[in-house]
Amino acid sequence: MPPPSPAAPGQTWAIIMAGGTGTRFWPASRRARPKQYLPIAGDAPMLTQTAARLQGLVPLERVLVVTTEEQRSAVEACLPELPRHNLVAEPIGRNTAACTALAALEVRRRDPQAGLFVLPADHVIEPAERFRATLAAGLAEARAHGTLVTFGIQPTAPATGYGYIELGDALAVEQGQAVHAVRRFVEKPDRARAEAFLETGRFLWNAGIFAFTAEAILAAFRRHAPGILATLEPVVGDAARLAAAYARVESVPIDVAIFEKAENVRTLRIDYRWNDVGSWSALAEIGHPDAGGNFKALGPLAKLIAEDARGNVVYSEGDDLIALVGVDDLVVVRSGRVTLVCTRERAQDVKRIVERLGAAPGGAEFL
Amino acid sequence: MPPPSPAAPGQTWAIIMAGGTGTRFWPASRRARPKQYLPIAGDAPMLTQTAARLQGLVPLERVLVVTTEEQRSAVEACLPELPRHNLVAEPIGRNTAACTALAALEVRRRDPQAGLFVLPADHVIEPAERFRATLAAGLAEARAHGTLVTFGIQPTAPATGYGYIELGDALAVEQGQAVHAVRRFVEKPDRARAEAFLETGRFLWNAGIFAFTAEAILAAFRRHAPGILATLEPVVGDAARLAAAYARVESVPIDVAIFEKAENVRTLRIDYRWNDVGSWSALAEIGHPDAGGNFKALGPLAKLIAEDARGNVVYSEGDDLIALVGVDDLVVVRSGRVTLVCTRERAQDVKRIVERLGAAPGGAEFL
Repeated sequence: MPPPSPAAPGQTWAIIMAGGTGTRFWPASRRARPKQYLPIAGDAPMLTQTAARLQGLVPLERVLVVTTEEQRSAVEACLPELPRHNLVAEPIGRNTAACTALAALEVRRRDPQAGLFVLPADHVIEPAERFRATLAAGLAEARAHGTLVTFGIQPTAPATGYGYIELGDALAVEQGQAVHAVRRFVEKPDRARAEAFLETGRFLWNAGIFAFTAEAILAAFRRHAPGILATLEPVVGDAARLAAAYARVESVPIDVAIFEKAENVRTLRIDYRWNDVGSWSALAEIGHPDAGGNFKALGPLAKLIAEDARGNVVYSEGDDLIALVGVDDLVVVRSGRVTLVCTRERAQDVKRIVERLGAAPGGAEFL
Repeated sequence: MPPPSPAAPGQTWAIIMAGGTGTRFWPASRRARPKQYLPIAGDAPMLTQTAARLQGLVPLERVLVVTTEEQRSAVEACLPELPRHNLVAEPIGRNTAACTALAALEVRRRDPQAGLFVLPADHVIEPAERFRATLAAGLAEARAHGTLVTFGIQPTAPATGYGYIELGDALAVEQGQAVHAVRRFVEKPDRARAEAFLETGRFLWNAGIFAFTAEAILAAFRRHAPGILATLEPVVGDAARLAAAYARVESVPIDVAIFEKAENVRTLRIDYRWNDVGSWSALAEIGHPDAGGNFKALGPLAKLIAEDARGNVVYSEGDDLIALVGVDDLVVVRSGRVTLVCTRERAQDVKRIVERLGAAPGGAEFL
């Protein structure tokens, strides 16, 4: 396939990583329609909101969405204006290093001087203007010094579910924002370590949001993960050969393959509202309660009626009525032919139901 | 309408009172399909179970079902073998005195020497053989002495939701069962009185189950409620004139109209399993928990999957999957386009939702 007509050189691109699958938003999320394609955090699907959040900084014609073949139509439904060749389908999921290399190669093919952001499709980040300002400052830093910039989240709790970035010295101020060196990346800690991290004030959550030039990240691959680059570089843009290459490319996170090894890593701080919407209970964190004190994410035809019921997360897609009496802090989800009732506290354990259905005769029809 | 060909004289009939409406089994029960037509207490609808419970004592051709025009098709669906002329549709609901008089008049028209039982369509009574034996003994007493027999339930708790019957002396033994005089009927007591009643051991719950001859009950109407009899006797069997008569007949319970006044009232005791299935929480009383400790009343295609969830009452009609995680002692109902989640403790308050829907714009479509 010939490369598309090149954009003006040295423009700003964004790679939205949308290929993830997950089980914690079952039954709304199904195999071919994970959470990033669902209107969980507002009226629009999360992927749509992520692309919208970039508007003013990166127009849709320079947004690449990396996903899987299975999720192609879900992406198209969420972003009908996305140019067709901006949808990059991985043959199979091979973790974030291969995905980032593929996307950077694809961007370089179109714009050799491109600067680019890499970001997940399914985070809530507000206000959008501040996020765009942070991204812009990070890319200015990356362009100016050829650095690899990560954006770290100011922790609000001793979370054990995220990796951490330990800040080094502040090296510069870019567009009003401090640019820090990185002392080290830390894998998900236990509770005691996470509490110690929080106390120091020098640890940020690693959220998988990056800025760099295509040239810098591909140079880093060449140095720290040459096998990945050697496997993918010759086949980018050739679907048939890409499939074969993906079958043998190393499956490793970008943090491990590149960021923990590279010396030119910098960090900017995101100290405003961020949520990775990790389970149904997150809807109570990112949403606003209705007059009755419940958190609704209802389709346009669905209704909720609550009697002495507060703090419940209620999601329904169709034209159903959900009625609650005397229940607090539950998750109640109606999707397809499934009704889920769960405590907010146990929302992580929805994945156990998914595992059991996967193993049960006839269970697959609900996955 | 000419009377149907008469049955052999002096046979045993049963009147099943099925016209009630209720809101506490919403959303499964709707206006045209109250709880007696639903498979709440087993695989068959309660009305079907009630008729089945009589088999061996009263064949279906001598069972009359009294209901409303609106519920006619629900009765036919539950009892397809019921002779058409055994479905007696009241023009409007006018409480149990008018209903009993109408049914007794209808039975007398077919069988002047009839003995009959009157019983609600929506109670669970087990074992059925013992119930039939109690009924048979009661009717033997009623036939032998022209008495009006009530069957009282041995209380198991100081319930404030039922009227009580205070037992008088045991007067006789009929087929192995004690026949008591009745000292008095007591309206629903407060908690302290109910506790005092329970302590004496001489109070039974009044469950609306009766036996008498058609002749005896109509004589009692003639004496204690002559207006009701005078209104209905001339029009029985004539639908058009019945409607006009019902519009002006007194609306009063049979207990108040007859039993509290009559002197020839007797009581037999039901001291085995009885439940009037008053709300969704009753399914945990009448049902047996599944291996996971939950109480299921599922349609043949519905499924339940539970993870650390116990004591829940789960009802679903369609081909849905209900998934529970970490929740205990809830009521979860899926019916039509409605999902209800309620604590077992608050199951009585489902009626408040129904009231609010009745008052809300667009709410009626869910009633």
